[in-house]
Amino acid sequence: MPHISLPDLPGIRGPMAFRPETAKPLNELVDVLLRGPHTLSPGERELIATYVSSQNDCRYCHTIHGAVAAHHLGHDEALVLKVKTDFEHAPVSEKLKALLIIAGKTAISGKNVTAADVARARELGATDLEIHDTVLIAAVFCLCNRYVDGLATWAPDDPAFYRERAALVAEHGYAASAVTPSNR
Amino acid sequence: MPHISLPDLPGIRGPMAFRPETAKPLNELVDVLLRGPHTLSPGERELIATYVSSQNDCRYCHTIHGAVAAHHLGHDEALVLKVKTDFEHAPVSEKLKALLIIAGKTAISGKNVTAADVARARELGATDLEIHDTVLIAAVFCLCNRYVDGLATWAPDDPAFYRERAALVAEHGYAASAVTPSNR
Repeated sequence: MPHISLPDLPGIRGPMAFRPETAKPLNELVDVLLRGPHTLSPGERELIATYVSSQNDCRYCHTIHGAVAAHHLGHDEALVLKVKTDFEHAPVSEKLKALLIIAGKTAISGKNVTAADVARARELGATDLEIHDTVLIAAVFCLCNRYVDGLATWAPDDPAFYRERAALVAEHGYAASAVTPSNR
Repeated sequence: MPHISLPDLPGIRGPMAFRPETAKPLNELVDVLLRGPHTLSPGERELIATYVSSQNDCRYCHTIHGAVAAHHLGHDEALVLKVKTDFEHAPVSEKLKALLIIAGKTAISGKNVTAADVARARELGATDLEIHDTVLIAAVFCLCNRYVDGLATWAPDDPAFYRERAALVAEHGYAASAVTPSNR
């Protein structure tokens, strides 16, 4: 049961419906980072969000973002599971693996990211914008994971829920899929 | 030296000027949380941000938000230092102490916040909105701290820098004080 009285929606959607004033900029931030024009595909950026959420053991976030990643990546749920559990051996680019290392370190502490980590990503073709956005995606999901678990929100068990929600979000985006006072 | 090539501005302001598309919603989120209409004063909310940033050992964030808190709280820098280092014995309300416990736990992991922590805050008068915003402020500063340190930004040493910047931010807000493409 959530720690405070929230609208009965799963995961981050409960507190977001409770506090639309903060949900609006947070959804905008996530839409720019995960869905805006970019040299990393939406699927790759969702994998970074999924990996960080998995490292932080936030079930709602790593399941929904894993489902969105799979939706973008030809419904390859096995790939998403491999990234969560053993990304070094997942069939993703070496550049993305180097970015996942940076994301995982950022999730523990920004201070853990080293110049060598960044040099390695750059050698594999990562741009400054890709490195910046990797750090910021990791940081944003450290926010979301703490928001979701700090209020003790609930998460559905049925994988079909996440697949359906992922299809909606992948098509329309996070802000457009949010519950607002006008469509609650 | 920052890990990527950033505009030469201290702390979070470098990456924010580098990526205004993400800075805009992030500044809006911080303005709503720390400066919007609220039953917690701006000084109290800045103390929560300062405490979390101090626990995360992010020098730029805990120094600038500590300076903003002091600006709002009659320039009481000793109070801010006490909250950073030993808030249980700081001259703040018992309700704020209970909220700082929730914030500190959220900073480690959302899962660390217990029903007893929340019940204690509620007994001392905290509302659901205050508890929600405490968790979200803590989560947002876990973002900011990782963003600032994950890119190895630099922080000025001179306390006068922070006092001056704090006065500007306290008067005008975070979004309005940001470097944008039009005023860079």
